[in-house]
Amino acid sequence: MKKIGILGGGQLGMLLAQSIVRHGAEALIYDPDPQAPACRSVRTSINSNWQDKHALSAFLSQCDAATYEFENIPHESLAELNHTTPIYPSLDVLKITQNRANEKAFLKNNSLPHVPYIESENISQLEEKINSLIFPIIIKSTTGGYDGKSQLLVKTKENLIELLSPSKSKKLPSFPIIAEHAINLYMEASCITALSKNGEKSVFPVFENVHTNHILDTTTVPANIPPEITAAIQKLALQASVRLGVTGILCTEFFITRKESVVKSAHTIDEYNLYINEFAPRPHNSGHVTISSCNLSQFDALSRILLDIPIGNPVIHENKYFCMANLLGDIWLDQSTEVGANINLSSLNRYKDEAVEIILYGKEQARSGRKMGHLVTCGPTLQQAKVLALQIRDALNNSSALK
Amino acid sequence: MKKIGILGGGQLGMLLAQSIVRHGAEALIYDPDPQAPACRSVRTSINSNWQDKHALSAFLSQCDAATYEFENIPHESLAELNHTTPIYPSLDVLKITQNRANEKAFLKNNSLPHVPYIESENISQLEEKINSLIFPIIIKSTTGGYDGKSQLLVKTKENLIELLSPSKSKKLPSFPIIAEHAINLYMEASCITALSKNGEKSVFPVFENVHTNHILDTTTVPANIPPEITAAIQKLALQASVRLGVTGILCTEFFITRKESVVKSAHTIDEYNLYINEFAPRPHNSGHVTISSCNLSQFDALSRILLDIPIGNPVIHENKYFCMANLLGDIWLDQSTEVGANINLSSLNRYKDEAVEIILYGKEQARSGRKMGHLVTCGPTLQQAKVLALQIRDALNNSSALK
Repeated sequence: MKKIGILGGGQLGMLLAQSIVRHGAEALIYDPDPQAPACRSVRTSINSNWQDKHALSAFLSQCDAATYEFENIPHESLAELNHTTPIYPSLDVLKITQNRANEKAFLKNNSLPHVPYIESENISQLEEKINSLIFPIIIKSTTGGYDGKSQLLVKTKENLIELLSPSKSKKLPSFPIIAEHAINLYMEASCITALSKNGEKSVFPVFENVHTNHILDTTTVPANIPPEITAAIQKLALQASVRLGVTGILCTEFFITRKESVVKSAHTIDEYNLYINEFAPRPHNSGHVTISSCNLSQFDALSRILLDIPIGNPVIHENKYFCMANLLGDIWLDQSTEVGANINLSSLNRYKDEAVEIILYGKEQARSGRKMGHLVTCGPTLQQAKVLALQIRDALNNSSALK
Repeated sequence: MKKIGILGGGQLGMLLAQSIVRHGAEALIYDPDPQAPACRSVRTSINSNWQDKHALSAFLSQCDAATYEFENIPHESLAELNHTTPIYPSLDVLKITQNRANEKAFLKNNSLPHVPYIESENISQLEEKINSLIFPIIIKSTTGGYDGKSQLLVKTKENLIELLSPSKSKKLPSFPIIAEHAINLYMEASCITALSKNGEKSVFPVFENVHTNHILDTTTVPANIPPEITAAIQKLALQASVRLGVTGILCTEFFITRKESVVKSAHTIDEYNLYINEFAPRPHNSGHVTISSCNLSQFDALSRILLDIPIGNPVIHENKYFCMANLLGDIWLDQSTEVGANINLSSLNRYKDEAVEIILYGKEQARSGRKMGHLVTCGPTLQQAKVLALQIRDALNNSSALK
């Protein structure tokens, strides 16, 4: 029986592990936390830290192939390990996608659309390049950020000058950054592609994402854009996957603006401008929506690639719209739910027929903004699916009194 | 975090365990075989035999609630164990459903439709009751049989007399049996009901089942019967669940005949006669089809009952037909696939878009007739879904040459 190692034990690892098992193989998890969600879904998990080269090597050595469910494992550590297990997508892909500067350079070098940006050793050194910046800008650390962590919006040149003034600049953190033009977003979208070892290429439908406080809030599918824009996004996502050399799955996140085409680096069709924001060479939280909406999920696609099973063509259920809403720790905190317990779901009774999926990750500790679960609704229009998802979530938010 | 124990580690236990984990809880498996499919989907499994009262008690004691995924665990052994963990459905239900004589008596006493039958201490003693039998008959052991094991078809009175003749009767096994009238089947159907601790009752759509060599071959949904027959089946399934006192899920299998109403014990509507064949108070192989066809699966329904989450109303995706085809060990044997390996699925490439689900149970040993996996197809008509499922399976059967 084939053994597949997953580096990381969060909800994405949990759902991937379950898919691997349903494809007749065994999944193994590596995560520092023995209480990580995925550890409950496998027979074998190794719980040690990301710096433990001995444990990582031993883990990989017992697997036929490996993948990862989050990309903040330094690729250098992985590259130095003593094992012969293939890792998909390759560490070359990870090297690019886990560093924003590398990612932007990749987009630039491959003529893939992207927002104009400037790279800098740290925030202070932005001063030298101030005249090249198109304001407003977002300053992002090149490594380690997720869910909007280590990001800073600077609206005007004057604001940046003030930030860099001697009295304030001392407090600025010193790490490599990129400063990118903050465009006036019409929509955020994502597109997952799946590429097998023997050249099969599959593309998922395009998702429409809404972020609140930089955290993914809802994903609706299919995205409310004309078919030619959908096709252009899918084509760009596939081009990027091929150029990156991905074997596995890749989530490409897009920014979409309308009408104003301020910058040349966009991919423009009619009044729509497309920009690739960033990549995740792994299952993605927006891809949760594939479980109930498509004939195969992002997890199935990756399992099949890892196990040499034909991927298939992901197709959304006809004439249906789906909306995934994240359930954040705030609901648990509002309900004053004890550690390790689930929230009171009794309010679901009122809406139970329309929720096609409720997944709780079983994280023991609720924190504000922490992804604790998600729900998916289905409706005859995009609007109805979305209204329903928000209604159900609001009911959960307000159900502490029912407890 | 709640812990749910599952007695039995087959494919039904595997899929139930995954659903429990996705509902934010922990699943534990008890199965004599450490290589049982479900053991790969949980952190903790206890591998000891069904007679080991100490291990069974210890297992149940560490769970908040327990259930079972096959019903051949003698309820007496379970009843004698030292633990306080509630088991759903209760052992009173199991006592009835694991014994065909009890099951038939239950149907009779509750005026639920059933095929006429006679109970006997063993086959030999059928002689005394020979004039009460309506031929052809099927003789079934009262306990322990599944997939048609321990069943014998006797076409005529003369055949039975011959079977009971002194020269042959010595070879007959001696265990309690029932002899039931073998009716001329128009269709076999099943209906899963889900009943919560606080009185919520949910009914799944009616499935149409085809058995080959007594083993479930295909399940299509919705069953090709008029709406009033579907409603009658759902009503009877629910009535039976309530009378049995089920908390959990129950699969009720039905026989359907048309026109000829030879026996009074049928439930007749127009020219359709309905009979309850048997019960399974657990997830059922025909219920695999619920995973892709409904907004919630049989596994989700049971998980929610065990975890005190509202069940919801199972609804089939509109205007769609689904067909589940079992993949038996014969495919593996035909492909001369080594132990523990999966079959060559490359032929799926030709059909990949229409197969909405392929689940492989990862059983290490292929045997003729052993359930090794299943696939589900989706189509705009029942006929198209079914033809496609059989085509894909045939292609797998014939793909050994491709290997």
